[in-house]
Amino acid sequence: MMFYKENFCRFRSLISENFDGALISPGSNFYYLTGLDPSATGERLFLLLVPPEGEPIIISPKLYEEELKNFWVSNIIIWEDKDNPYDILKNYLDKFNKEKGELLIEDSLPVFFLIKIQKLLGEYKLELVSSVISELRIKKNGEEIECMRKAAEIVDKVFYRIIEEDLEGRSEKEIAALIEYLIKNFGGVSFDPIVASGPDAANPHYFPTDRKIERGNVVILDYGAKFKGYCSDVTRTVAIRTISEKARKIYEIVKEAQENAFYAVKAEIKARDVDSAARGIINSYGYSEKFVHRTGHGLGLDVHEEPYISPNSEKVLEACMIFTTEPGIYLSGKFGVRIEDDILLGEKGIRLTKADRELRILGGV
Amino acid sequence: MMFYKENFCRFRSLISENFDGALISPGSNFYYLTGLDPSATGERLFLLLVPPEGEPIIISPKLYEEELKNFWVSNIIIWEDKDNPYDILKNYLDKFNKEKGELLIEDSLPVFFLIKIQKLLGEYKLELVSSVISELRIKKNGEEIECMRKAAEIVDKVFYRIIEEDLEGRSEKEIAALIEYLIKNFGGVSFDPIVASGPDAANPHYFPTDRKIERGNVVILDYGAKFKGYCSDVTRTVAIRTISEKARKIYEIVKEAQENAFYAVKAEIKARDVDSAARGIINSYGYSEKFVHRTGHGLGLDVHEEPYISPNSEKVLEACMIFTTEPGIYLSGKFGVRIEDDILLGEKGIRLTKADRELRILGGV
Repeated sequence: MMFYKENFCRFRSLISENFDGALISPGSNFYYLTGLDPSATGERLFLLLVPPEGEPIIISPKLYEEELKNFWVSNIIIWEDKDNPYDILKNYLDKFNKEKGELLIEDSLPVFFLIKIQKLLGEYKLELVSSVISELRIKKNGEEIECMRKAAEIVDKVFYRIIEEDLEGRSEKEIAALIEYLIKNFGGVSFDPIVASGPDAANPHYFPTDRKIERGNVVILDYGAKFKGYCSDVTRTVAIRTISEKARKIYEIVKEAQENAFYAVKAEIKARDVDSAARGIINSYGYSEKFVHRTGHGLGLDVHEEPYISPNSEKVLEACMIFTTEPGIYLSGKFGVRIEDDILLGEKGIRLTKADRELRILGGV
Repeated sequence: MMFYKENFCRFRSLISENFDGALISPGSNFYYLTGLDPSATGERLFLLLVPPEGEPIIISPKLYEEELKNFWVSNIIIWEDKDNPYDILKNYLDKFNKEKGELLIEDSLPVFFLIKIQKLLGEYKLELVSSVISELRIKKNGEEIECMRKAAEIVDKVFYRIIEEDLEGRSEKEIAALIEYLIKNFGGVSFDPIVASGPDAANPHYFPTDRKIERGNVVILDYGAKFKGYCSDVTRTVAIRTISEKARKIYEIVKEAQENAFYAVKAEIKARDVDSAARGIINSYGYSEKFVHRTGHGLGLDVHEEPYISPNSEKVLEACMIFTTEPGIYLSGKFGVRIEDDILLGEKGIRLTKADRELRILGGV
């Protein structure tokens, strides 16, 4: 995977018209432009400087010196705890052209660093890096798609492993920890797994508790893996030993909505058209008030990124975009159902996550 | 645990002299002042406003409405996706007194939010919340100490569970995932576990790889748990089946250094005195160049916080502070040894982590 340098060059040419440069701290944008994911940089300044012309510059604490050996970026300035990294930064900023008067800055940079950086910037206006880079990141190249296929394979494998377990009597937290452990045998997690059982599953925004999973519960399992930085994100809903007629009916509605969204996916339509394909089915059964979130979100180095599949999104879908479709119905105090797959837009929609979507009644009839 | 309100009142009275208020986003400071840990707030504005007088105000996205029911803060403004939360914020900021001209702002707030908030602030100067709140957080009350004891008990249990495993032939990543899984059966992790074997262990700043652990390797295991938000952080170094004489000797030096630091701990000395108690031992054996980091760090809601136990710290230690002591020796290309415990400063030092510090040769003689 040496498309990072290409990403960098495309980004640099994209910013040169309107900006004097960009300051990017570690995270998904940093990784996209360099291939480097320096973890836990904590309180020490670590920055990628993108000048509108010429080579990238990295300012790194000494701790990361080893990681930066044999790295494609050659302008690396290492600072030690006795140095002031902001003096180093100032030196380089002074060499930046100030024609445009605007700099791009990493969205996720903490205020802790920004307050000190702003003192050096003086008259520069700041704009978020995401406002420019998402145009590049939204379409995946062949290598990126391959990574995302692998990330999707991991969550499929984990699903078949989980449904072999007897979930009854075990806590949501315990099952979430097990899912995470299984994923980590193949890669990393893209977010903390959600395991929501019984009435807990009626809250779409949910984190696992000590609640014990019971016979007859409907359980939402929502989790994701990472492969070389690229994410998957899947949701399956299962029942424990038995299921009420009501829950079975809701499951079939959500499944139909998810399938309708999938078949709607094609190039040149708007993101909102995919949303309405899912929402239309749910509305037709009278549950419009119970589908309380957007239908999906883009997926890549971040688990939530462009294109968002929401009711008002005018974003035009194009080949090589990857996003989720995840309709759900939530009946407060009772239960919830959600089904989610990762969809690659090729000639038409292609499911990257392939785990069975038929209703599964675990350990039951 | 209802000391959050007390924390809030103490914080408010501390800021009123120099600041017109504080803006705090979710994280450890937010939790300290409210008892609330809204996870994954993502791209939606979620803020605690601390006026210099009167009640706290919370601005929250609708997603968190359920979580905020029956909560001790009564001024809660919920916004929906159709609203502009910055208009709501502006309204409240306008009511702030502007006498001092300075506001405190959460250190970890991402630029994504700050850029929009700064447009509302106009003439206010910003200062980091940590510059004021760490004075409160550095000393733990009885309930906090109890939580930290529990977090320490978890990592002790996990140590005895791990040394029953046969580590030989298994990857660092696999063992790190296992440690995380075990911790999560009792609570949460306070950071991603470090498993560093053989030459990998010579890099103190290390993340687990696919390297397979081999016979004769020295393995550093560094991990932590959380209990009700409060952290533990422990390191033990073990050998696999056998150990070289050299590594055994280094182990004993590090253990002696760690013990010397522990016995040095008492009230009214400076943090640097604890550092030099550890460093002095290592220097006396001629390894001063191989102990490349500070001796320890404070511990609480964050895994790194005040007081830092470093060579130049003038911070005076007081009762009810909790910090690590974790000297290490790293021989590049060969191996490394580190031993770390969490120490509560009572009448003297009290170890919260108690797992055996004698050299363990797993599955061997």
